[in-house]
Amino acid sequence: MRANLDDLVPRLLERQPRAVARAISIVEDGGEGQRELVRRLYPHTGKARIVGITGPPGAGKSTLVDRMARLCRKRDETVGILCVDPTSPYTGGAILGDRIRMQSLYTDPGVFIRSMATRGAMGGLARASRDAVDLLDAAGFDWVLLETVGVGQDEVDVVRTVDSVVVVTVPGLGDDIQAIKAGILEIADVFVINKADREGVERAARDLEMMLSLGEHGEWLPPILKTVASREEGIGEVLAAVERHREHLTASGELDKRRRGHLRLRVETILKERIVAAADRVLGVEREVERGFEQRTDPYRVADRLFSGVIHAEEVEVEGVISPMEERAP
Amino acid sequence: MRANLDDLVPRLLERQPRAVARAISIVEDGGEGQRELVRRLYPHTGKARIVGITGPPGAGKSTLVDRMARLCRKRDETVGILCVDPTSPYTGGAILGDRIRMQSLYTDPGVFIRSMATRGAMGGLARASRDAVDLLDAAGFDWVLLETVGVGQDEVDVVRTVDSVVVVTVPGLGDDIQAIKAGILEIADVFVINKADREGVERAARDLEMMLSLGEHGEWLPPILKTVASREEGIGEVLAAVERHREHLTASGELDKRRRGHLRLRVETILKERIVAAADRVLGVEREVERGFEQRTDPYRVADRLFSGVIHAEEVEVEGVISPMEERAP
Repeated sequence: MRANLDDLVPRLLERQPRAVARAISIVEDGGEGQRELVRRLYPHTGKARIVGITGPPGAGKSTLVDRMARLCRKRDETVGILCVDPTSPYTGGAILGDRIRMQSLYTDPGVFIRSMATRGAMGGLARASRDAVDLLDAAGFDWVLLETVGVGQDEVDVVRTVDSVVVVTVPGLGDDIQAIKAGILEIADVFVINKADREGVERAARDLEMMLSLGEHGEWLPPILKTVASREEGIGEVLAAVERHREHLTASGELDKRRRGHLRLRVETILKERIVAAADRVLGVEREVERGFEQRTDPYRVADRLFSGVIHAEEVEVEGVISPMEERAP
Repeated sequence: MRANLDDLVPRLLERQPRAVARAISIVEDGGEGQRELVRRLYPHTGKARIVGITGPPGAGKSTLVDRMARLCRKRDETVGILCVDPTSPYTGGAILGDRIRMQSLYTDPGVFIRSMATRGAMGGLARASRDAVDLLDAAGFDWVLLETVGVGQDEVDVVRTVDSVVVVTVPGLGDDIQAIKAGILEIADVFVINKADREGVERAARDLEMMLSLGEHGEWLPPILKTVASREEGIGEVLAAVERHREHLTASGELDKRRRGHLRLRVETILKERIVAAADRVLGVEREVERGFEQRTDPYRVADRLFSGVIHAEEVEVEGVISPMEERAP
């Protein structure tokens, strides 16, 4: 693996599309390859403008992303796009549709597009997609656009570790959308009402304003923008708002604070996946669960047993893991 | 805490509403109280019919749940209802609305209703709500109805550990709903098209049938039912379908298989929360993240350090945890 990475990493840093694609596949596959790759590329990250785009199905997110990417290209800025679908374990219809729509960008080497969907491993997608953002950042894309399909806690988790979150909605979703808005309100930095040529756009804007006035926010008041992405209307304003937000983050010191929070979330996710993997290696999660089930043991006791097993077994093994840390410490 | 539980547990087993309410609050608060409570009540669980009700906002889930509960009461069966909102950190509008609508059931001691929303602790809601289901089961409710607000991976996680999942949809959601359906398809045991007096009901049924024919399912083919919950139409059929599903689970041996899977999910969730709590106690997650941020250390290395810290520190401490396990082992 190390030999492969020795070859892959320099090519990725030159933004060679095949190297970027290969690196994302390594991240999707997980394991030691992923860890080593992120370790090597992490020092090269921190330059891209990382933007999450989320909102309910049918809001026109992928069209908006497509038009944002085109406009960036007109300015000669490069764009990496990740479309993430936490609701679907398959590479389902929605993502395929996006891909077809975005096809026109494929031949442009200044744009890289990739879809990611859950591959069995529950909960691993937020980590894998964030690692993929790091790769695109390290590869030198000026913008990284992380688009989610659908809306829910898992989508929120996916976009939670980006610099700026654009929440896209459409007029006429009605009262039913209130529940969705409530969950998403606190992470939105920019609101976009897409399909703004439709009836009900003023009401949608008023509803959002009302919700904003009820919720808490710091110095940054999320702007509410109107777009008709399919006709390329309002796209420049969206990019400008994202850039203003980024300037605000930098000037206020909020960017560092946010990135600390992001690091924390990522670290916790890795810890969680690691304890389950270790428990599985040491005692076998399946075996202990089976035993617990037969004896009608409650889940807390079964977890106690697995946790204890890991603690005892890892005491020696862990030395190998801690040493590279010590090397790095000042 | 133990003294409190000595008093609380017998009252909960008698289904005293105030004891049930108090027990759920303990579960929401987390910590050792929650663990001890679940340990004590777990041997009393396994009798209730546990049904999850999920689907997009506006599908009329709470009305359906309300009518199902009324019908159960007419049959002299008791019902515990949990309304879970993973998308909202506040006890928001949606849940409040449900409560008001369900108010008429409140005076009936055969019905217990409780809302649960995320309380800061990300990801803890699926565990807490499942523990609350155990409490209602132990309290002797014939039915436990677990309703989610919204749709997404987190809602899927909440209903993943129930016996039967009812997915509610409505006519006319259009193509946009495809993405949602795809994620939810594999967990549905019964489909309900609510508001079936609306136009488009036949198309919605055809769409669902099509998706079912494309997807994989075992011996149980999820039925597609039509209801107008607000007029109490089709409710008996929903209960009958759930009962048929339950019979199928028992007869086929699938119930045990499912419950093993549920135990596994719960155990893994507890393990994950525990490693983060331990890392926080031993080294301080905040402190290590801060240090990692300053030194531009990648998240995998920061996680390595925390994990190692827990392994070394817990080696002695953990003995106290393992002993009650050993007592219980045969």
